[in-house]
Amino acid sequence: MNMINIIEKKKNKERLTKEELTYAVMGYVNEQIPDYQMSSLLMAIVLNGMTQEEILDLTDIMIKSGDQLDLSSIEGVKVDKHSTGGIGDKTTIAVLPLVASAKVKCAKMSGRGLGFTGGTIDKLESIPGFQTKLEFSQFMKEVNTIGLALMSQTGNLCPADKKIYALRDVTATTESIPLIASSIMSKKIASGADKIVIDVKVGNGALMKTLEDAKLLAKTMIEIGKHYQKEVVCLLTNMEQPLGYTIGNRLEVEEAIALLKGEKSDSDFKELVISLATYMVHLGRNIDINQAHEEVVKQLDTKAGFHKLLEFIEMQGGRNFSNEHLKAREIYAPISGYIKKIYAEKLGTLVKEIGGGRENLQDQIDYEVGVVLNKKVGDFIQAGELLLTVYENKKIKKEEEYLACFEITEEKVEPLPLIYEIIK
Amino acid sequence: MNMINIIEKKKNKERLTKEELTYAVMGYVNEQIPDYQMSSLLMAIVLNGMTQEEILDLTDIMIKSGDQLDLSSIEGVKVDKHSTGGIGDKTTIAVLPLVASAKVKCAKMSGRGLGFTGGTIDKLESIPGFQTKLEFSQFMKEVNTIGLALMSQTGNLCPADKKIYALRDVTATTESIPLIASSIMSKKIASGADKIVIDVKVGNGALMKTLEDAKLLAKTMIEIGKHYQKEVVCLLTNMEQPLGYTIGNRLEVEEAIALLKGEKSDSDFKELVISLATYMVHLGRNIDINQAHEEVVKQLDTKAGFHKLLEFIEMQGGRNFSNEHLKAREIYAPISGYIKKIYAEKLGTLVKEIGGGRENLQDQIDYEVGVVLNKKVGDFIQAGELLLTVYENKKIKKEEEYLACFEITEEKVEPLPLIYEIIK
Repeated sequence: MNMINIIEKKKNKERLTKEELTYAVMGYVNEQIPDYQMSSLLMAIVLNGMTQEEILDLTDIMIKSGDQLDLSSIEGVKVDKHSTGGIGDKTTIAVLPLVASAKVKCAKMSGRGLGFTGGTIDKLESIPGFQTKLEFSQFMKEVNTIGLALMSQTGNLCPADKKIYALRDVTATTESIPLIASSIMSKKIASGADKIVIDVKVGNGALMKTLEDAKLLAKTMIEIGKHYQKEVVCLLTNMEQPLGYTIGNRLEVEEAIALLKGEKSDSDFKELVISLATYMVHLGRNIDINQAHEEVVKQLDTKAGFHKLLEFIEMQGGRNFSNEHLKAREIYAPISGYIKKIYAEKLGTLVKEIGGGRENLQDQIDYEVGVVLNKKVGDFIQAGELLLTVYENKKIKKEEEYLACFEITEEKVEPLPLIYEIIK
Repeated sequence: MNMINIIEKKKNKERLTKEELTYAVMGYVNEQIPDYQMSSLLMAIVLNGMTQEEILDLTDIMIKSGDQLDLSSIEGVKVDKHSTGGIGDKTTIAVLPLVASAKVKCAKMSGRGLGFTGGTIDKLESIPGFQTKLEFSQFMKEVNTIGLALMSQTGNLCPADKKIYALRDVTATTESIPLIASSIMSKKIASGADKIVIDVKVGNGALMKTLEDAKLLAKTMIEIGKHYQKEVVCLLTNMEQPLGYTIGNRLEVEEAIALLKGEKSDSDFKELVISLATYMVHLGRNIDINQAHEEVVKQLDTKAGFHKLLEFIEMQGGRNFSNEHLKAREIYAPISGYIKKIYAEKLGTLVKEIGGGRENLQDQIDYEVGVVLNKKVGDFIQAGELLLTVYENKKIKKEEEYLACFEITEEKVEPLPLIYEIIK
């Protein structure tokens, strides 16, 4: 076998055998195949696609490239949650406590973020003292004690995916449904959950720009799940504007806490948290959707979810935030009208640039910075009314740059739908 | 500017600007852009193509990445010749002396071969004492004295092409008309000729497998030529079987010598040599094709071409071959019938494997090894009649392996056409 012939085959749209994929992937992991050959193969995959069988083979190779977690000592059905990533997405922080207090165990591995804001791990680390580097035994004990735990990914979970992902990131080969599906699913399966709920974001602020692509990704992940007898449900959700009202690590944790505390009125964020939690409870307890929904709403209304969150934070070493925020800077609407667009990616990039996210993996995140929206798409705003509040620290952006993230029009604008479709 | 965005654009089939192509190519040459990003871009180019404008830009960047030879001190029109490469292609060795003796100056840079047999440089070096590493001044003097000279490419001619070509070779990104056209034409233009005749090989033993692709390549190269006011003529020629009767470095030189000496009867090799020389004389002297053809045939018939070749060999230090050949091994036809196929690529690979070509650039070529065909496609052969003669040295192949390169059938087979089309 020979890497040049393997690349050649994929270039000519031929199907690669599992042996060939193993030769390429494990050869790359073991540094017998140079990165310039791997990146050429990856670009050929991005442009020529993969068959369902190739996707299953690739996923399997990545799973077996490292450890697989054994969660069998946790009683009951373990349900995991994943999001393909969006601006202002802090759902995990609110969803897990709701699900755990509804008696479904959540043993979650999570990653750090490279991009707009941090990943869930980074967001939680904005809580003083919060620990995410747990020993596996400690992690298991916590799940068995309070029903949930969250830790950062261990070094040897899908090392092949890790190495290939890092290469994809710098060779413009991220946008590929086969590669995204096998990357997500290999990690989820190696993490040991029984059932998985996936939030597939769609829109200008997401990896999937069209509903069609998002559907294809969902179906591909569901098929992979089937192969491993793991039930997968995908929620296709809107990422044309940021989720909820906050972007920035501490601000997002506070928004999640406020939701569980009942301090927040209705929002797209609340709707998504309830929907995701409902599907997780539905799968975890094998009860019907309506009953699962009732259960989740009850955890919210009784604040059982909030108390579970406090328990969770305490268990992982977290203390209270300081009372002080950075100095708020208010930005006002220049004209009256309806909010037509909030460019999620643009606004996310600004928050990253003022320190809320990383350009490189070794960058330090400034947990305190971020923005708070006062209006969402469809809302009416008066000229001079508060549009957003900015929390900046070392880096300051011009007001125009923030204003350029919004479009305000005279004509009435309908609010954006949140959930496009549920695929299972 | 940023390499990831450049790759992304090409992945999305967007046009790259000259600034972007310069950033990518010169960044790669200057080792500011890693090979894994370049190979990803190359695969995107292979699969998504390039516009005519991009091809012109790329060619220009490669030309300007190094030296451009100044042939202006040679009087008259300088005509160059190029072949896209085939099995048994020794035309240059016979064409240049014919053209030079017909009073058209040939100042040729040539390359070494990586593949089936050596390049023209390697073939000529099979002549004892023959020197191809000339000083540029010596090269120019030789052209002005005897009308022709041939030297190996100087280090700094199109270094960008050189570096990219080496990467394409190991990343399965060789088969791309835009990349092939810009690679060939950048070297030809940097080499300083005024007019160029290109032999575009088509068939199983060639880079271009179909006539359609060969036409597209020809048209692309002609367009590039126009941009630099260099007239280009392309001959699209058959490479379904080896050219002429020999494959192997010394054997091919001997076949070329025999042709000029008048010892050879008609063959596809003779036809191609006359055709290529005719177009070179036509372009170089600006006379009509029939007149050019007459001139070339005259050089052949009077042996003026042969004497020019002897002059050329002597001028570059060559002496006579030894009288000894390796021991000949004869292989006979197992059945009677018409030769239907001679698999050029297969036979070329065997010759390479017995030492006639290189696997790696540092490999030493065994000039003495090779094969001599006794029959060509369309010929009738009796069972037990000589099919081919093999000259082996250190490595021996089984008879079956040689026989597998031939297909003999009962039905009459028409000889293959040699020249499909001439495009200018």
